[in-house]
Formats: sequence, C-alpha cells, structure tokens
Amino acid sequence: MAAASSPAAAITCRAAVAWAPGQALVMEEVEVAPPEAMEIRVKVVSTSICRSDVTQWQSTRRGVMHSDQKTRFSLRGKPVYHYCAVSSFSEYTVVHSGCAVKVGPTVPMDRICLLSCGVSAGLGAAWKVADISKGSSVVIFGLGTVGLSVAQGAKLRGASIIIGVDTNPEKQEKGKAFGVTDFINPEELNEPVQQVVKRLTNGGADYSFECVGDTGVVSTALQSCSDGWGLTVTLGVPKAKPEVSAHYALLLSGRTLKGSLFGGWRPKSDLPLLVDKYANKEIQVDDLVTHDLSFDDINKALELMLENKCLRCVIHMPQ
Amino acid sequence: MAAASSPAAAITCRAAVAWAPGQALVMEEVEVAPPEAMEIRVKVVSTSICRSDVTQWQSTRRGVMHSDQKTRFSLRGKPVYHYCAVSSFSEYTVVHSGCAVKVGPTVPMDRICLLSCGVSAGLGAAWKVADISKGSSVVIFGLGTVGLSVAQGAKLRGASIIIGVDTNPEKQEKGKAFGVTDFINPEELNEPVQQVVKRLTNGGADYSFECVGDTGVVSTALQSCSDGWGLTVTLGVPKAKPEVSAHYALLLSGRTLKGSLFGGWRPKSDLPLLVDKYANKEIQVDDLVTHDLSFDDINKALELMLENKCLRCVIHMPQ
Repeated sequence: MAAASSPAAAITCRAAVAWAPGQALVMEEVEVAPPEAMEIRVKVVSTSICRSDVTQWQSTRRGVMHSDQKTRFSLRGKPVYHYCAVSSFSEYTVVHSGCAVKVGPTVPMDRICLLSCGVSAGLGAAWKVADISKGSSVVIFGLGTVGLSVAQGAKLRGASIIIGVDTNPEKQEKGKAFGVTDFINPEELNEPVQQVVKRLTNGGADYSFECVGDTGVVSTALQSCSDGWGLTVTLGVPKAKPEVSAHYALLLSGRTLKGSLFGGWRPKSDLPLLVDKYANKEIQVDDLVTHDLSFDDINKALELMLENKCLRCVIHMPQ
Repeated sequence: MAAASSPAAAITCRAAVAWAPGQALVMEEVEVAPPEAMEIRVKVVSTSICRSDVTQWQSTRRGVMHSDQKTRFSLRGKPVYHYCAVSSFSEYTVVHSGCAVKVGPTVPMDRICLLSCGVSAGLGAAWKVADISKGSSVVIFGLGTVGLSVAQGAKLRGASIIIGVDTNPEKQEKGKAFGVTDFINPEELNEPVQQVVKRLTNGGADYSFECVGDTGVVSTALQSCSDGWGLTVTLGVPKAKPEVSAHYALLLSGRTLKGSLFGGWRPKSDLPLLVDKYANKEIQVDDLVTHDLSFDDINKALELMLENKCLRCVIHMPQ
C-alpha cells in the first residue's frame, strides 16, 4: 500500500476571475490551497462554457466548499470564490472528491469535457428522466447543445417524430444531424407553436423538453404534450423569471412536469459509461464543438455564447 | 339476438335546476329527451355532492352532449343544461354510454355512488398515479373525502408515514381512521408546513398530494417533497387562481409534478373492480358518508359543503 501523501502546499497559477457581474474575466495569478479531507486538487486540461455559466457570470453568487464554507482560491490574501462545484476557469482547481470521475487515458479531454455538462444533461433527460420509448413523438424547445443532445437521445431510442423548435434558422440544418425530423421557427408562424406541434403529432407529443432556460416556455411545452400521458421535462436554468407557471387543467388532464438536473445521471458511476459510449462512437459529441479557443481567449467564448453564435466553445488550458 | 328497442319518448320528471350561479337549486318538472346514438337514459337512485360541484355551481358553465352540442333537458321548451357529463340531480338523466358502468344488483347504490367520484379519485391518485411504495412517506394537503381516500390508499400500500394537513382540527380523529399517522394544522404552526414535514420525514416526503383545490398549495406540496425523487400529485379543481406556479429549482432538483383526474382509472373496466373491493370490505367507503338527505333537501347538502361541515352527503332520490 502507498503511504498517504504529505500535505501539499498552495499552488500559484493563472485563473480567469470575474470581478463584477457581466464584466470581462480578468487573468490573475491566484493561489490554490491544498485540498482538505475528501477533496482533490486537479490540473485542468480542457473546459467549456455553457449558457448557465453565462447566467451565473451575470449574477452575484459566490461559491464556497461544502465542508467549511470557505474558498480554496485566493489572490494576495483575499478570497476568490468558486462556481458550481467545478471552478475550471483556472489552471488548477479544488473539487470535492465526489465530483471527480475517473476515465481512461486515451480519450480526448478536449471533447469528453462536454460530457460533464450539456451533452450528458440532454442524453439523460431523454433516457433516464423521460425514458423515451420507441415510435414515440418528441418536441424539443431550444436546439442548443442540451436540446440537440435530447434529440440525439430521442433518435437513439427510436422516436418516430422529433420536432425541434428554435428561433435561429441555422438550427434547422444542425438539428437534422442530431435526429430532428421537423423544424419549427416560432418567428415564422402565424399561430401558436403548440398548435403546429399538435397537428404534426396528431394530438400532442408524448414528450416535450424545455431547453431554452425560459420558464415561460414550460407552459407552451406542456400545451404541446398529449392529454392523458404527456410528459414535459424542464432542463433549463432560467435567465429571468424563476417561477414556472401553468394552468392547472394542463396537469389535471394527465400531464406530468418533471425537472432534470444533469439528466438524472449519477456522475461517479454513469459518466465513465458515457465516455465509453463516446469512445465507441455510439454517441456524437465532436459536432457540438463549434470553437476551439485558448485560455487567453475565454472572454471571446462568453461573447459568442451571449450572441448565440456558438454551440460549445472548448477552452484549451496551457500545457 | 334481441331486436333494437323502439325510439323512446321524452320523460317528465323532477330535477334540481341551478338558474343562477350560487343561488339555491330549484325543483322543477323537466323533460328528459330520449337518448341519441351511443347514449343511455338512466334512472338516478343515489347521488352525492363534491366540492367541485359547488365550484361549478358558483360559476356559469353550461354543459351539452358531445355528439350534437345540445342538451337532453328542457323546461317548457327552453333548454336546461348538463353538468360534468353526469347531471344526476334529476330523477332521470341521459349520459354517453361510455360514462355508464355495470355493477352487480346487490351492492348498495347509496354507498357505491361515492366510487364514481371522490373515493376513487383518491385511491387512484395513490395507487395508479403516484404508485406509492411500501415503507414510503406521504403528505396529504386537505383531508376531505379525496384526501382521506389518498390516506386509505397509502395505508393499504404500506406507507410508513402518512401526514395529514388540514385547518379543521376535527380532521385529526377522522384522519386516523383512514391511516393518517401524523396530523398538522397549519393554523397552529409558527413555521412553514413544509419545514415540519421535512423534519417528520427526515428530509422530505416521497409523495405529496394537493387535495384542497388551491393552486397556491401546490408549491408547498412540492417544497414538502424530497429532493431527487419527490413526487407531487395535484388532484384539486381550484376554487380561485387557476395558475399553478412553483420555483423552477423545485423541479430542477428532481421533483415531479403530476395531475390526477379521477385517479387515472378507466371507469368502464376499473370501476367494477373497485365496487368489488368495497363489497369484499377491502376498502372503506361508509365512514365518508356524514349525511343522508332526501332529494328535496339537496340545497342543505350544498350548504354543508360550503360551510365545510360534511364529508359526503348522499342524496336519496324518490323511489
């Protein structure tokens, strides 16, 4: 047996720090404290940015470690806070050991990093949370990385109709590559989206997914679902109004509304299986990466996301 | 094979008619037209009143038959409208044949009439919609006939903790008889109900049921449920605000919100099975009848319901 390693010292490295909500991240030399019990300090190789990162960046939250409510980052003795149990916009970070997953040495880090967020969230929503069945009809609101991954999950389950809804016309072609059979651009309609969905699905979809991060869309997603058994899954972190609301009759007539966080996966045991699926080319990840950027260009990634001009930007940390 | 019966004539009989929202029903001699295709005309022996009847009576809705959008009731040539596909506050009524169920000749009509509404709605919510599992924890908001029937359903499924929430202190004893293990009167609390429920269930109930008919309670029911897997079932027809609303994080953290109409039963095939269960004393119905009233006293039944002084009033029609 190996002896326990001796207490490590603090590491000094570069991190992109948000000093104020919505302001460009600033490259700083930070100190990363040694991990406490049940924590590990890891070197970040690749990371990516999702829409929820942007939402949080625009807010004023300050993350700390669970164990002692403190941060492991500091700058000239002053604390720099964590975000979302990951804090990967840094060359080194400290995470709870429960958040770390072991994967094989040969898988490309700059692609499987997408499995720790959006892709898995979408696949899990389709497979574990909704448990989509063969021959069913599906409608997906929002064809970002998450929505496209729901489409991929639905396709792999053998859904017959996969309707994608997005206001960006470019998503029509992109959607096709991930299994979308019908595309609706709400801005080109003279009638409510749910009416078109009901026509395409002969009464309402079996499953609908809210992947926009807009609580207002949840009601439309419920209305697009079938009476009696329709299931609506909401995945998004809302950018504004945090209250989901819907007319009671939508529920009473037999619909179900379910939330999905990280697709219901248990990261420790399930993520390695998803990585294997990627390695075996059973799931598509590469086509979701629209930009490869260096760590120094991280603000460009935030801009692209804000302007809705990317799917996933992968940030390559210095080697 | 029997020949088709000849077209029947209209029947004249007594019916309790609502002439204006919330005003006392008036006994009238009405004409009941013969049934059209796929309809049957039935003699009403027993009926009962539920809270949704009262809600509808206070509104201005006018029911018609599905097939031709007309009513089968009239009074001196003027139409009298249906309610809720039943219209049983009349000595005779016409219903779609799909709404009629065949039961054995020996079961007491003045008790099994409760199975066509509240009792079945509660049992089905527990058994079919929530599918309560053994050893689980349950919280029920509102211990009327529906809520008590959910409790009965939970008890028969072997739930370990069945918490009843009601502002009427008399429901504590009544609840016990139907399986309620813990009673909470929100008016006697100095803290939010969900906090007490979380303490009693060590983190949140596995299932929660909204049986008040108050959309505002849905959010509390969700908050009373466990993170990760908590299921909230809403059964009530709201008396006021028809919008259900909840903070998105309640869903995103793994809760499910489901509506239940008539407990998810298929009346034609399932109701006879419930009648058999009653006949075999496997389910309790009699104790939910608090008043037996004659047809002429039907307004008293509405008053008792309005004043929250009854569970079920059975109305006995003239023989």
